[in-house]
Amino acid sequence: MSTIGNSTNIVWHKCSVEKCDREELLEQRGCVIWVTGLSGSGKSSLACALSRGLHARGKLTYILDGDNLRHGLNRDLSFRAEDRAENIRRTGEVAKLFADAGVICIASLISPYRKERDACRALLAEGDFIEVFMDVPLHVCEARDPKGLYKLARAGKIKGFTGIDDPYEPPLTSEIVLRQNQGLCDSPNDLADTVISYLDKKGYLKE
Amino acid sequence: MSTIGNSTNIVWHKCSVEKCDREELLEQRGCVIWVTGLSGSGKSSLACALSRGLHARGKLTYILDGDNLRHGLNRDLSFRAEDRAENIRRTGEVAKLFADAGVICIASLISPYRKERDACRALLAEGDFIEVFMDVPLHVCEARDPKGLYKLARAGKIKGFTGIDDPYEPPLTSEIVLRQNQGLCDSPNDLADTVISYLDKKGYLKE
Repeated sequence: MSTIGNSTNIVWHKCSVEKCDREELLEQRGCVIWVTGLSGSGKSSLACALSRGLHARGKLTYILDGDNLRHGLNRDLSFRAEDRAENIRRTGEVAKLFADAGVICIASLISPYRKERDACRALLAEGDFIEVFMDVPLHVCEARDPKGLYKLARAGKIKGFTGIDDPYEPPLTSEIVLRQNQGLCDSPNDLADTVISYLDKKGYLKE
Repeated sequence: MSTIGNSTNIVWHKCSVEKCDREELLEQRGCVIWVTGLSGSGKSSLACALSRGLHARGKLTYILDGDNLRHGLNRDLSFRAEDRAENIRRTGEVAKLFADAGVICIASLISPYRKERDACRALLAEGDFIEVFMDVPLHVCEARDPKGLYKLARAGKIKGFTGIDDPYEPPLTSEIVLRQNQGLCDSPNDLADTVISYLDKKGYLKE
């Protein structure tokens, strides 16, 4: 028995079907692909293309989309700083469960702060957290503005918007950087292929 | 765009790989097996036996254990009434994600209140929430007392312990009731077979 956070008397139950058994069944290795970048940088498009590309290879993926989670698990959270941090913490914990299930979990969130991303990384085994940085300049994202959010932020109708009046801390050591500029844009499928090649090389696509 | 709970400006992202595609890949249907019952009623043992039995049939399962989640996702929660409710809400939301991923998700929690279990049921599509009631009399659970918690509760060292000084509301319409008495105890594997037969009959084990 132990005391963890606010909980006491909690026993950890181990079970005889383990991660490696599920990975053998699925012929893949469970991991987290953490896609970070500004709003409009193409995170969701990459996540979808990745999931299509991997599914076509017979691999099981699941997307944790920051926006979608706010309809369910994180519906009690606002956009205040502490709630944004909790949003990311919970997403990291759930992503960890999916990786443990043997799934290739694709988490797609702005996740602007290095500290919070690194806390999620620390939850996973070495190598199982693969950070993908959508390196797209602010002016390109703002020109795209697919949800009209930059316009609202510039008009002061959204406060604390990442890139406008709240910082984005670019990753320093992400596993994959997908650089995009206005003129030269790879398709989401091309970008996904870069990630799939990485997974293949690192042995995540076979057990 | 919409306002959900504390969140505004949240767009739902749909993706081209859907639940049914993952289910076809896995040759099973994603669902939630929600195992409820008193402490010591055999929830964890059933969950393990179920996951072994299904894995042996080539099916992908994942166990969400109430105690284990308190080491991660729910580590910020105490055993106060509102935190216990939030513990169950989050577990239900995560279970829903696993079912959507195509996984047979086994949630094992005391989950003493009908209202909270039914709220989790309401998250899932018709039929996809399968409630399993571990119907074991209190005196049997207390005699087992595998974690020594009843002893602590009787001594007043744990407050609000289900069955002692906090109520357990038995399900009225659970899909499966596993009745156990002191004299006549089926093994966890026998109990698991009952659940597996149900899943088979309902078409969850093939797509």
